This record gives sequence, structure tokens and C-alpha cells, in this order.
Amino acid sequence: MRTVYVNGVFCPEDQGRVSIFDRGFLFADAVYEVVSVLDGRLVDFSGHMARLRRSLGELAMPQPAGEAELLAIHRELVARNGLVEGAVYMQVTRGAADRDFLFPPEDTRPSLVLFTQASSLVEKPAATSGLRVVTLPDLRWQRCDIKTVQLLYPSMAKTEAKRRGADDAWLVKDGFVTEGSSNNAYIVPGDGTLVTRPLSPAILPGITRTAVLRLAGVAGMAIDERPFSVEEALSAREAFITSASSFVLPVVEIDGQRIGDGTPGETARLLRAIYIEEARKSAI
Amino acid sequence: MRTVYVNGVFCPEDQGRVSIFDRGFLFADAVYEVVSVLDGRLVDFSGHMARLRRSLGELAMPQPAGEAELLAIHRELVARNGLVEGAVYMQVTRGAADRDFLFPPEDTRPSLVLFTQASSLVEKPAATSGLRVVTLPDLRWQRCDIKTVQLLYPSMAKTEAKRRGADDAWLVKDGFVTEGSSNNAYIVPGDGTLVTRPLSPAILPGITRTAVLRLAGVAGMAIDERPFSVEEALSAREAFITSASSFVLPVVEIDGQRIGDGTPGETARLLRAIYIEEARKSAI
Repeated sequence: MRTVYVNGVFCPEDQGRVSIFDRGFLFADAVYEVVSVLDGRLVDFSGHMARLRRSLGELAMPQPAGEAELLAIHRELVARNGLVEGAVYMQVTRGAADRDFLFPPEDTRPSLVLFTQASSLVEKPAATSGLRVVTLPDLRWQRCDIKTVQLLYPSMAKTEAKRRGADDAWLVKDGFVTEGSSNNAYIVPGDGTLVTRPLSPAILPGITRTAVLRLAGVAGMAIDERPFSVEEALSAREAFITSASSFVLPVVEIDGQRIGDGTPGETARLLRAIYIEEARKSAI
Repeated sequence: MRTVYVNGVFCPEDQGRVSIFDRGFLFADAVYEVVSVLDGRLVDFSGHMARLRRSLGELAMPQPAGEAELLAIHRELVARNGLVEGAVYMQVTRGAADRDFLFPPEDTRPSLVLFTQASSLVEKPAATSGLRVVTLPDLRWQRCDIKTVQLLYPSMAKTEAKRRGADDAWLVKDGFVTEGSSNNAYIVPGDGTLVTRPLSPAILPGITRTAVLRLAGVAGMAIDERPFSVEEALSAREAFITSASSFVLPVVEIDGQRIGDGTPGETARLLRAIYIEEARKSAI
């Protein structure tokens, strides 16, 4: 049984509980981060903390603890669970208060919840087989740049994709792909440029996205941050996604149509290898 | 201290807890209803149960219990808390499961949480003073017809309204009012017609909305279900809102501009009186 962390206490997972009055439960008034773990160490921890600060700031939500303390809790949880590869999930809510749409008093103590999930991040069948995605309308709210737990639609979309025999969904707004259900989306058209939607309130500012774009630049790839349409994706040479838990994964099929020759593309394979090497090296 | 209900158990409110793995907490994968209580009895219980069934159906979420059992729990909670006037809040989630965007196995037990809130519903200062609202862009997801707990934006909007010295926010999409932060919105233009946005995925199908439109029809009022713009609202004779917890409340100011003569309108006053009378009579 896992050890989890809830508001100052490490406890067995079946004792990890929050109040029914927690605003994370009643109002989805909560943000989260997922930090990958490789070789028992945290990948891009400072990037995730910077995004957490931004999310909290956008929602006028107080910091639950200083960054050094959050790092200590992450490490303690990794140690207690003997986690070698997987992720640490952290959620911060505005705390528990009697139900009211109005934010509670500013001295309300935020809730802080963390738990681990073991999984194979490097050795992954999808890295060699590629993902099949379907496109679905993007019905989410208009502040997807804030990493809130309002994840019902992404959850519905991923479940619908599975029902249709695919692995995931790409969300589409006004004909253009915004992002995947829980990852950023990329294509490589015939000219070899890396194309991905620019940051805006329509997409999550992926920590892995930032790292991969930086590494692609270092590797000499041309990068074009612009929206791309479903049609353009279907005729692209290759397609892929990035996220903290999938790193870089090739997409080989969109809406039942093969992308390129239907096998993982060179760019995705290269970026995945570079990213994993870099992540291993810089993990703390 | 209140008695609350959590998954089969009545307990003191400070013991009302759910798993940190509850999908209501991690994914906002949950729906809710708020049933008003007048004279210790439940207002339009069957209407709320019908909407709950619809919400659950739209999300492929299982029923947590039969309607007779849910009624018994509501009544037990009203009795144990000696609730005379206020509301019973009920939330249903897809249950607790290890974190995964994919819906958990269908035999996952849904979570069922209920609690009461005492408040004065009939004697309310706003009924005579009227509400001041500000308009804010409607940034919510595109399935607002499902009563989910993805309430962060309405919560932000209401808090922002308060910060600006108003009581609530009306949300605006493409120049037209969708609804209030947690209520349906109405205007009465110069010709005396009752105008409110028709049901669609953009608004919640209010239980009080249904009742009020029916009672307005019985009272011989002309009703026009169509979107209305902010400009039209500003020049209307009167404006008001409806919800389960506010019944009918006049709006006397929008974005700092007085509506009509700046006092509660005749239509809102009449409909509030008729509604309360009817609610008292039909409560169970």
C-alpha cells in the first residue's frame, strides 16, 4: 500500500482523505502538478514549481508551502514508496469552508495532497507502436492555461477515444487543434518544420513542451509556433505529443488515417531520445 | 455541529471526508443538486431528481441510489439537523479509483455526499433592495446544461463581482447574456414580455426556471425564450434572476446602470410571491 501525503501528514493511501467541504471537491477550486520520476529523482521540478506559482497567482490562491518544503515532501514520498520510475501528483486547493461561491476568507488554509504513481516512463509500447488519436471538439473552459482540476471534459474525451478504439483524443477548436486530452500536440509537415500551437489561454503551457522546444532548437530544428488544422495534421509527415508523463510519443494515426507511412517519425524518435537523456541528467 | 451524509453513513460534519482518490476531487467528475427546504419540507424534489438523472445520463455515471432512498436520506438529514429553512446539497461522483483520465471500471461505486445549509430563503434583504450585477465574459465549458462541480469560473466571477462592489455576475457570450453565476437571468422589456434565454448547452436547465415560466404562463404573462443582449438588458423595464436558493430576486442595477427606476420591478415581485406560495404548498 502506498504512503500518501495529506495536509502535513504521511499516511497509508486508504486513510488519505479530505473534507467534503474542501473546495477542490465542491468547486474544482484547485490546481495540480505531476512531476515525473526517473531513477528515483524528480524531473524538471523547478519548472513544475514555476507553473504552480503561476496557476496559484492566476486564481489568487495562496501558496500551500515554500518550494523547499514542497521539494522535501516530494522526496520523502518518493523515498517512502521506493519509487524508481513514475510520477508524483500534487494538488493544491483553496481549502475547506462552508459551501459558498464566494472565495473563503484569505486566511483559509489551502489543502495540500500528494501521492505517487509507479509506471514505466521510458520503456513504453506506445514509443515504438505510436498512438492512434481521434479528433473531438474542444468544449473546455477558456482558461486552459491554468492547470486546474476541471478535468471532466479531457476525461470524457479520452474515454470516448478509447471507446472508438483509439488511444487518445486531440481537441479541435474552430478547425484548429488546440492540444491532446492531457498533452501538447505537434506536427511535422513536409518541409520538416516542427509546428505546434503557441501558448495562449487555449492550451496548457507544458513543462515538457518548453523543454522539448528548447532541445529541438539546440538540435537545429526549425520551429514554427502557430495553430495547425486537422487537415494539415492528416497530411503531415509525422505527428507527436509531449507531456510530463509521456515525454515524447509519436502519433501514427488520426481519425483512422495514417500519418506519414504509419510508423513513428524520425523527429519524434530523436526528440524522445534527447529528452530522456536530458531528463535523466538534470533530475534532482 | 451539523450531521452530514457520506457514502451510507450519517456523521458529524468534521468527520465528513472522502478519499483523495475520489474523482470528484481529482477530476471534477461529479454532479450535484441543491434542494430548497421550506417549513422543513423539500421544494420540487422530483424536479431535482429528474435533472440529476439527466446529468448522470449525459456523463454515463451510475445512479448512486434509487429515488426513494435519496428522498429518505434528504428527509433524515433535514430531521437530524432540525432544518426548517435552507437547502440540502447532494453531490454524486464517479467514485474513488487510482488516478486515470479514463473512466474507472463500471462497477466502481459512485460516491454520495449530502449536507444541509440553514438560511433565510423567504425573508431576504435582496428581495426588497434588489441585486446589483456586473457583466463578465462567459468562459465556462460548453456543456453548462450538465450540473457538474466544475464551478471554478462561476466562483471566480461571483468573487470578482463582489470585489467590484456588486452582488453577482451575469455571464456574457458573443454579446448575449447566458445566465448568472449560479442562476438563470431574465429581463422584461418595455412591452412587458418575459424574456429569458432558451435551454441549450449554454445554460443550466433551472428547476426554478421551469416552475417560474409555468407560473408566469398561468398568470397570463407573455413569455419569449430568446437570447438577449447586455444593451437590451440595460434598457429593460426590469430584470431578475431565479435559482433554487434565491427563488426569484430582482436585479436593479447592471454594470452600474439602474434598470427601470432602480427599484425591484412588478413582475419579479409578483413571480416571487406566486412562486413562494406554490413552493410552500407543493413541498414534500
